[in-house]
Amino acid sequence: MPRVAILTTGNEILDGRVLDTNTHFLLSTLHAHQIEVVQTASCTDSIELLQRSLRFLLDEGDVVIISGGLGPTTDDLTREAVAGFAQLPLFRDEEVIRKLETSARERKRILNPTNLRQADRPVGAELIPNPTGTAPGFALPFPPSADGMASKLIIALPGIPSELRQMTADSVLPLLRRRFGITKVPQQIYFKVFGLAESEVGGRIEKLNLPAQIGVAYRVQFPEVHVVCTAETFPSDLRESFRQAIGVGNIFSELSDGTLEEVVRDRLRSSGSTLAIAESCTGGVLGGMCTNPPGASAVFVGGVISYANSLKESLLNVSADSLRAHGAVSHQTARAMANGVRHRLGSSHGVSITGVAGPDGGSSEKPVGKFFVGVSTSSETQSFEYFYPSTRQRVRVYAAYTALDVLRRLLLGIPLRNETPR
Amino acid sequence: MPRVAILTTGNEILDGRVLDTNTHFLLSTLHAHQIEVVQTASCTDSIELLQRSLRFLLDEGDVVIISGGLGPTTDDLTREAVAGFAQLPLFRDEEVIRKLETSARERKRILNPTNLRQADRPVGAELIPNPTGTAPGFALPFPPSADGMASKLIIALPGIPSELRQMTADSVLPLLRRRFGITKVPQQIYFKVFGLAESEVGGRIEKLNLPAQIGVAYRVQFPEVHVVCTAETFPSDLRESFRQAIGVGNIFSELSDGTLEEVVRDRLRSSGSTLAIAESCTGGVLGGMCTNPPGASAVFVGGVISYANSLKESLLNVSADSLRAHGAVSHQTARAMANGVRHRLGSSHGVSITGVAGPDGGSSEKPVGKFFVGVSTSSETQSFEYFYPSTRQRVRVYAAYTALDVLRRLLLGIPLRNETPR
Repeated sequence: MPRVAILTTGNEILDGRVLDTNTHFLLSTLHAHQIEVVQTASCTDSIELLQRSLRFLLDEGDVVIISGGLGPTTDDLTREAVAGFAQLPLFRDEEVIRKLETSARERKRILNPTNLRQADRPVGAELIPNPTGTAPGFALPFPPSADGMASKLIIALPGIPSELRQMTADSVLPLLRRRFGITKVPQQIYFKVFGLAESEVGGRIEKLNLPAQIGVAYRVQFPEVHVVCTAETFPSDLRESFRQAIGVGNIFSELSDGTLEEVVRDRLRSSGSTLAIAESCTGGVLGGMCTNPPGASAVFVGGVISYANSLKESLLNVSADSLRAHGAVSHQTARAMANGVRHRLGSSHGVSITGVAGPDGGSSEKPVGKFFVGVSTSSETQSFEYFYPSTRQRVRVYAAYTALDVLRRLLLGIPLRNETPR
Repeated sequence: MPRVAILTTGNEILDGRVLDTNTHFLLSTLHAHQIEVVQTASCTDSIELLQRSLRFLLDEGDVVIISGGLGPTTDDLTREAVAGFAQLPLFRDEEVIRKLETSARERKRILNPTNLRQADRPVGAELIPNPTGTAPGFALPFPPSADGMASKLIIALPGIPSELRQMTADSVLPLLRRRFGITKVPQQIYFKVFGLAESEVGGRIEKLNLPAQIGVAYRVQFPEVHVVCTAETFPSDLRESFRQAIGVGNIFSELSDGTLEEVVRDRLRSSGSTLAIAESCTGGVLGGMCTNPPGASAVFVGGVISYANSLKESLLNVSADSLRAHGAVSHQTARAMANGVRHRLGSSHGVSITGVAGPDGGSSEKPVGKFFVGVSTSSETQSFEYFYPSTRQRVRVYAAYTALDVLRRLLLGIPLRNETPR
């Protein structure tokens, strides 16, 4: 297995203006393909710094992937730095020039002489096409050898994240596999979890005592926890072992790009159901989630943001007596809101949230982080109580996720978690 | 001015599991204090790699700040790596041990012998206190010298982001200022802009031809553009020059933590106004924004998410004839929605959004990215047309921002941008 090192370049990274997302993308992608990265570095746009960084990283890795410095401007110095480092001349690729000319013509722009620098690369370097941008990348065996079978490899990619990502998938991974004889393509299984802390998920999976060749990585995208399992071959029962360990119901998707909103949308659609929502402390966050996926209008009717209590009465038919007796943050109000919005908006399902997002407005009985979720259908109206003490932003997002997840579980007939239904 | 290099360590960073936020924090913080960072690097938890990285970075910088590897576990190797590199023994600080013991007692935990490693540091290193965690940091002059005035400095900080941030502000910046004779504390002015692209903002500021000692940095937090201007002293008219260059009305806040939502909330509150919203394609995103700031309930009454057209009629009193004649995405519907929600929910101001978020549902007349904003008060109801072709997510966020920004401008009596009011 090759050891890889990564170098990003750019003044805008070193002065903190731009967050370097390319390094993290390359780290997680290469890790997923079981290629080890031992060292990364970033430096400002200087030929000398680039060359000294390259020297350092080539001592540590078999491959150095450089991100950035391939654009048309004078501070794009990666081509010159690599050529100088390898003591090779640059040559200008006529085919790349033609592509630059075509692209400029289509975009009605003038091709400056400096733009043509993007067609340069060191003699002996292989072109890495850039399907979505102008500056191609290159791969240079190092030290230069007649048969191209030098021991090390310098790969240069543009710094624009979308271009780098595409080129990594299209060209860099296949190139690394070819060059280093990695014949098997690693497989991945993916689990997206809501409702368990990362440490809890990790603890459950640790008990599986997986063999070392099965890699497990965790990613937290609040409030979701993602588990990515990578290996060349999986035991046939591995997916099921993960499901049992995590808890089937806690996994809302096994697709790397699946979302909770889409799962709910699809389940509503396939069962011919429609949804209306009534939200208080989340103030629109739940509605925003419901309408995130394309095609939401097929199942999502609309909602009421009943921030003021008077609207709970006038728009959702929550009785003033009940509000007075139980308070706005209560099982009774959550149920009345869910039932009220379902009737008023004419949907098959109604979901509600009422709670205390903070930072003010909490009490010993209804502290910040306390919220109730109501779910109403023609056959039954239920409510569930939760407590998630955190910042205002997190309470709101967590409550909206919880409401959607409750609906998902009810639609799929999955047991709810540790809530107390009434 | 010292040149700084940054080293982060941790297997969890190099395998992509954890995003290295410490490097970016240090880069932007040091840049704001006009301390230049020339090189950064990250490596796995290995004494040899740490030492080789340190050697490389000490060639490039006068100061190397190391993040990570100070915890109690066996893969925390920064102490040993630095001591070995400088050929100095470690010593155990009795005072730190007492603090560890107190902390363990308070948290009812047992202090393992390995925990005591956190009290170690190289002989000659200065302690950097950690007010919020257990592992302190240290600063070691290098090469070791009797008077402590060695030419270079190695600073080691824990990898936990909140601890590193606190220690940077409390100790590292004062230490750097002291050691390198930086007497003046840099000042910052901040502009948060909505409605102009980053390139447009940059072009306008470039025309100011600012002297080199005034640093300007841009940060994009879609759809906001932030301009951060840093210098030791500002010409008295600089702030005003920036305002004129950017356009006063395009700046919604000059506070680094100011938000558009808060500005609208404060303006509504000070004018004794209240707000109700009606949103269609944004489906809750506008409501979510309005209820983001604490204390939103003082001015935000609530809203209607009229995703289905029938709700525009039943809840917002948009006439069926008008919907048929002009369509749901039109000036007329935007105005009727804003007026309808204001009346129905009993607020002084009503704001509405109706548009095409895509990816489907566009037409040549009403393409994806077309949206209308309505604003209604007791004296007047207006609507404005926009076109922002982009992804579904971006259209929705941009439309919600636009609606809030229109309201801000109307509340403050600032001219609107290039919209066509009806």
